[in-house]
Amino acid sequence: MNVFAERINELRLLLKQNGIDVYYIPTADFHGSEYIGDYFRILPYLSGFTGSAGTLFVTQNEAGLFTDGRYFIQAEQELSDSGITLYRSGMENVPTPAEKLRELLKDGGVLGFDGRLLSYAFLQQLKESIDNSNATIRCDVDLTEPLWRERPALSCCPAYRLAECYTGKSTVQKLVEIRDAMKKVQPERIYKKGEKQIFSKKQKFSADVYLITSLDDIAWLFNLRGSDILHNPVLLSYAIVTESKAFLYLNPAVLDAATSALLAKEGITLRPYDAIYEDAAKLCKCTVLLDARRVNCALVQALPEECTLLDSPGPVLSAKAVKNAVELKNLAAAHVKDGIAVTKFMYWLKHTIGKQTITETSAADFLLSLRKEQEGFLEPSFETISAYNANAAMMHYCADRETSAELKPAGLLLVDSGGQYYEGTTDVTRTYVLGDIPYEWKQHYTAVLRGMLSLSAARFLYGCRGVNLDILARSPLWQMGLDYRCGTGHGVGYLLNVHEAPNGFRWRIVPERNDSCVLEEGMVTTNEPGVYIEDSHGIRIENELVCKKGEKNEYGQFMYFETLTVTPIDLDAVLPEELTASERKTLNEYHKMVYETLLPHMTKEEGEWLREVTRPVGEKE
Amino acid sequence: MNVFAERINELRLLLKQNGIDVYYIPTADFHGSEYIGDYFRILPYLSGFTGSAGTLFVTQNEAGLFTDGRYFIQAEQELSDSGITLYRSGMENVPTPAEKLRELLKDGGVLGFDGRLLSYAFLQQLKESIDNSNATIRCDVDLTEPLWRERPALSCCPAYRLAECYTGKSTVQKLVEIRDAMKKVQPERIYKKGEKQIFSKKQKFSADVYLITSLDDIAWLFNLRGSDILHNPVLLSYAIVTESKAFLYLNPAVLDAATSALLAKEGITLRPYDAIYEDAAKLCKCTVLLDARRVNCALVQALPEECTLLDSPGPVLSAKAVKNAVELKNLAAAHVKDGIAVTKFMYWLKHTIGKQTITETSAADFLLSLRKEQEGFLEPSFETISAYNANAAMMHYCADRETSAELKPAGLLLVDSGGQYYEGTTDVTRTYVLGDIPYEWKQHYTAVLRGMLSLSAARFLYGCRGVNLDILARSPLWQMGLDYRCGTGHGVGYLLNVHEAPNGFRWRIVPERNDSCVLEEGMVTTNEPGVYIEDSHGIRIENELVCKKGEKNEYGQFMYFETLTVTPIDLDAVLPEELTASERKTLNEYHKMVYETLLPHMTKEEGEWLREVTRPVGEKE
Repeated sequence: MNVFAERINELRLLLKQNGIDVYYIPTADFHGSEYIGDYFRILPYLSGFTGSAGTLFVTQNEAGLFTDGRYFIQAEQELSDSGITLYRSGMENVPTPAEKLRELLKDGGVLGFDGRLLSYAFLQQLKESIDNSNATIRCDVDLTEPLWRERPALSCCPAYRLAECYTGKSTVQKLVEIRDAMKKVQPERIYKKGEKQIFSKKQKFSADVYLITSLDDIAWLFNLRGSDILHNPVLLSYAIVTESKAFLYLNPAVLDAATSALLAKEGITLRPYDAIYEDAAKLCKCTVLLDARRVNCALVQALPEECTLLDSPGPVLSAKAVKNAVELKNLAAAHVKDGIAVTKFMYWLKHTIGKQTITETSAADFLLSLRKEQEGFLEPSFETISAYNANAAMMHYCADRETSAELKPAGLLLVDSGGQYYEGTTDVTRTYVLGDIPYEWKQHYTAVLRGMLSLSAARFLYGCRGVNLDILARSPLWQMGLDYRCGTGHGVGYLLNVHEAPNGFRWRIVPERNDSCVLEEGMVTTNEPGVYIEDSHGIRIENELVCKKGEKNEYGQFMYFETLTVTPIDLDAVLPEELTASERKTLNEYHKMVYETLLPHMTKEEGEWLREVTRPVGEKE
Repeated sequence: MNVFAERINELRLLLKQNGIDVYYIPTADFHGSEYIGDYFRILPYLSGFTGSAGTLFVTQNEAGLFTDGRYFIQAEQELSDSGITLYRSGMENVPTPAEKLRELLKDGGVLGFDGRLLSYAFLQQLKESIDNSNATIRCDVDLTEPLWRERPALSCCPAYRLAECYTGKSTVQKLVEIRDAMKKVQPERIYKKGEKQIFSKKQKFSADVYLITSLDDIAWLFNLRGSDILHNPVLLSYAIVTESKAFLYLNPAVLDAATSALLAKEGITLRPYDAIYEDAAKLCKCTVLLDARRVNCALVQALPEECTLLDSPGPVLSAKAVKNAVELKNLAAAHVKDGIAVTKFMYWLKHTIGKQTITETSAADFLLSLRKEQEGFLEPSFETISAYNANAAMMHYCADRETSAELKPAGLLLVDSGGQYYEGTTDVTRTYVLGDIPYEWKQHYTAVLRGMLSLSAARFLYGCRGVNLDILARSPLWQMGLDYRCGTGHGVGYLLNVHEAPNGFRWRIVPERNDSCVLEEGMVTTNEPGVYIEDSHGIRIENELVCKKGEKNEYGQFMYFETLTVTPIDLDAVLPEELTASERKTLNEYHKMVYETLLPHMTKEEGEWLREVTRPVGEKE
């Protein structure tokens, strides 16, 4: 019997012993993080599925796993022989997890899960969905602990204080501003005694307590960085901020004495990581600001019943998204460093292909070695995607060292990578021409490029959201009957998570994602349209954009983007006659900037080559 | 003393007698109509203000009138000497009416108004805004009736049945479909005993009673047309639809015996117009579907307290917006007729200017005479805007017969007009070059044209809303630091109101307007970007678009637009070198269609001229 089938059967035994009919396990940690530490990788242990997003349910008769389009093929392979049914989320006639739970509990029963792994918002949704009075929801059932015997320990990596020359603002100052914002919260929802309340959306409320559970929010507010999650320099922590006090919950071992003393001097009380649950229970009747989409429901249930909950992404989220002048200056420097590495990689790739064996992974390794040469580089900001031809059609392909494809002097190599620097986080994609490619691929490449350029050159009135601008990137593809099945771009943290709310580019508003805020000056967003043709090829071109204020006149405040990314866009796949005059202008100005910025950092040979690959494009090549 | 000041004082006396501290009168009828009949023109009588949108409040110490940017100058003139303060809505530091009422009632008092003139949604907003327990709201106070002695009678114009060859669907069939939709309503809000209820947005509810109060919804459902509002072929009426019955409330004098008999045969019970209030009171405990933004609060208060209210724009609104095959075929014919008139007008204008005196109004008159030559033409679909140069900078300018500007053989004439035909409603704007114009005006004209063409040529995935596409029309202007301060387009009725929800193009969602629905096949929307430079010139180019299904593939259902409007776009102001290749293609294909469609209807001279004005545009003229 398959090892995973065995583990599911073991779990079924535990279900019986605990009187649970349906057990539910998401891919999650206690903080609603997008990426999670090894301690939380319960799904790979139980089911064999290793994708970054999945949800498992187990009953005595059925086990099912939900995942999205990125992982259909992988999940099918990994789940084979496990007896677990694959639910392809988003496909026609496939229920959502909440709908499936509703169906499983239609005749009553007990649903159990570990409430620390599910958000309060999800619990509310579940309660609305399961309108069956014979069904019971139990949020305190952790069956993983007894089952997973060799479970890794909860991460406890050293954390450090990020200096003000990088953050641009002290924690003391940030706390002043956040406390000010706590007095005028415009919540999305209000809960009293667990019931949703009706109120006017324009009304402002004052919060007594701000409960912060998102790891990047906490890292930003306290100017701390850690490494409890691969590629995400955060530390496992919770925080509570009141008008006069601030409590930071973490494993005390992660801070050195000097940092602990510094925090104490700033008026911050350090408490053990788990103490948040006791402390929450001790809050008396008060108004608590929290983000129901991120806070786990066990923590909310620990709060006294009399608390009023103001549900809002919170002032830290919006303050963090707007990069300050120091951060922006640093980011520009980080992108130059990153651009040097990526450009030297392109030079190497173009000059080495066909002469020496290169695989997807060896290319990624070489790129990493170039980034490591840059001062202040800490680690990749996510797992590099180095994908050749058909592999690049899988948006989140990750080459396996053993099966990594060998690159030939033909076709396309897509490389999506980024770095964590003291000066900020980068994320860049280029698709490189390794030799001959079909004309159709050039058409696709040119359409992707046109969309990327149009969005980069957008000028728009203040008040626009990603939803208003997304079509600029997508239109050249839509005109051809093509699409990429994801957003056009996401917010990027500052030496923090490479995916950051609340800004983004996406045509369809997805409330859970909270990425369609009004674009504010100082927000950094990626611009990454693509074409993904199954079994054939994948193309993506990605620059990072920072939003700036332009002219203010009688029509309002105009906004525009400045591009942060500094590395050539491969012209070998461009059909210049398909670009409009203004697209050509945007491209040529971009390449002029790239050339002038990077030239001082190139060898003589690289410099000559750089001049050629950043040449202005005319109406015909 | 100014006559309006006298009338306000008379009203103040009535306030005292009735124990009212604040009296509130909007520009409105009993149906939430955008345009209103003479019976409802209370504001012009009381205040002298004649604009189409305004709100008056009167206390013993103050009288104030709110209106929007279209009417600031006009209101200032009309209100002078009346003692009424002008509140410029939308300007900085100007309160909304609800905010002003909140201020006036902050120490308590009695607010009175005629509840038939205010929507239930507004009443709810007011109740939320006035959170002062010492304030009383009375919705049953009509002080206009005793005050306005020469008040015109409520309109009672003859109505008629529109034949199925025009409507494409019988009322019997429409009732079947509406009753089906009543079983699966997804309301925006639910009220029980006047209190808002919390529920899951995805949940579907069944309505026992559908209360329809929007005049165009009723006209559509019962295939009736009338003329109780100028340019809007509707009749004053209410309707109630239940699973087995349908009640139509109107003045019985408006229908001839044959039509009444026909309706009776279709199972429709005719009731007197005002009987809706008694009948509403007699409904027992049931679930009522209504549109809180449109239904008046007096009618809602007439409902028994035990009723559950499902607040939704309702199934008639969405069904009406999606034109059926017969309507679309008719609409195409209507647009050809309309195009013939507008094109002959252009020919006349271009050949007459400088030779003979033409004024803004005489031009409009001539255009109307050409429309009247078309079979099936009934009346203009709105008051024609014929605006020369600087006058066109006022978006809703209406030439006065006495002060109407004389057209010179130089500059630009903007003509926005439309017709009501049995085959549908049209709305078209062209801006004509009458002679020399500055280069900058050509740049503006070209930018407007580029935006109009880009939106017309959009290809997009099903699920897009106007908010996603708007930037296609606006981008060329935004790139120049220009904007038009309104939406890009609105839905259009079928021999009904020229402004119709729920489709439209607008970048900022305005919930009250309800014009940002998902674009469905068969919806008709105008595409009318513009440039308005105060004291200088105004440019608008408007075509009507019908949404169509295109290719369906693995990415989803693609959609595109077909243009309904058939009349040349004046090329004399176009800078061809500023158009992209695809914009030129769209323009040239459009003009080819215009030429081929209209040629058979032109005289020899007109035909030769038409060939010239619809010539293909190259990279240079």
